[in-house]
Amino acid sequence: MKVFNNSFTVGTNRRCELIDITDRIEKIIADSDVSEGIITVYCPHTTAAITINENADPDVVHDILLMLSELVPHKHKGYQHSEGNSDAHVKSSIVGCSKTIPLSAGKMKFGTWQAVFFCEFDGPRRRTVHVQITGQ
Amino acid sequence: MKVFNNSFTVGTNRRCELIDITDRIEKIIADSDVSEGIITVYCPHTTAAITINENADPDVVHDILLMLSELVPHKHKGYQHSEGNSDAHVKSSIVGCSKTIPLSAGKMKFGTWQAVFFCEFDGPRRRTVHVQITGQ
Amino acid sequence: MKVFNNSFTVGTNRRCELIDITDRIEKIIADSDVSEGIITVYCPHTTAAITINENADPDVVHDILLMLSELVPHKHKGYQHSEGNSDAHVKSSIVGCSKTIPLSAGKMKFGTWQAVFFCEFDGPRRRTVHVQITGQ
Repeated sequence: MKVFNNSFTVGTNRRCELIDITDRIEKIIADSDVSEGIITVYCPHTTAAITINENADPDVVHDILLMLSELVPHKHKGYQHSEGNSDAHVKSSIVGCSKTIPLSAGKMKFGTWQAVFFCEFDGPRRRTVHVQITGQ
Repeated sequence: MKVFNNSFTVGTNRRCELIDITDRIEKIIADSDVSEGIITVYCPHTTAAITINENADPDVVHDILLMLSELVPHKHKGYQHSEGNSDAHVKSSIVGCSKTIPLSAGKMKFGTWQAVFFCEFDGPRRRTVHVQITGQ
Repeated sequence: MKVFNNSFTVGTNRRCELIDITDRIEKIIADSDVSEGIITVYCPHTTAAITINENADPDVVHDILLMLSELVPHKHKGYQHSEGNSDAHVKSSIVGCSKTIPLSAGKMKFGTWQAVFFCEFDGPRRRTVHVQITGQ
């Protein structure tokens, strides 16, 4: 059994943004020399998240960001956290900071349209993503 | 260490529907010959998801689908994605396409009322679910 | 490869509450004698969840609970489940009952502000949390 850990940084350019990080993860898989096992993609930030969705049409990303911002408004009279980014914390808990993907024959068991996205909810910032490959 | 992969298909009958797939996963666990480890249930689609919730009273499933549809409406003037299924993509990112369950003594460490559901948000369609059992 | 399972109980005091369980998980990691691998934190209840978010400012927890309760109201004319806790089931599926965290050098690969919370949505109750450490 091997446990291979690696990390990379992502620079975000807007307050809310989804950035396709699939290529970065595929490179770590290739470096890991593991072909069968589990890929954990982990965001160590509390105002960001990881999701898996479609990257073929950028309008899908637009619509995800739109609905999350309608559901969890940036400003709300009830928010008590003084940093002005309560919405980003809430979105982080709704979308989730960790995703697990099966690895088989050296590839993520992805569907045709799936990609992994880093979700920035309080940028622009410099962010880190941890990737762990566990298997054989 | 063993890594056991299997998949099955699910036929959905409505646009939005939760289908209990617990039995299908238990059969794959039995076939895997793994008794201690991790079960990853993975949906390779971007307009569907996997969740764990109660299967004893079907009204719970009704209420989950109701609230998701109130939160993320099918039609919205701001949606840009032209396929008319933006809501399904958003719900997929909110519920999540991957769930991880501890396996011990050959069984999922489930609570009394838990079951695994395939969440269809843009059916009816023929769908695939990947299950990976990693352990010993 | 080792698979180490342990569980603990959490007593909740309000209907909706987030309880920091990071210390309890760190103790299980120390007991496991595993330093590299995967930590699965699993909630076996269908009206509760697990999330990772900030524990430095308690106002963040307040704002997460506030927004979840605005999004998913306790009472709704469309709910059919007769136990009066449909909102708790919906919140459980939105936040998720399972979280996966990479373990490296004997520690969770956490960011500066991250903590693991048990999310009570239908308390007060006595609850159980399962923790599984898989690795070497």
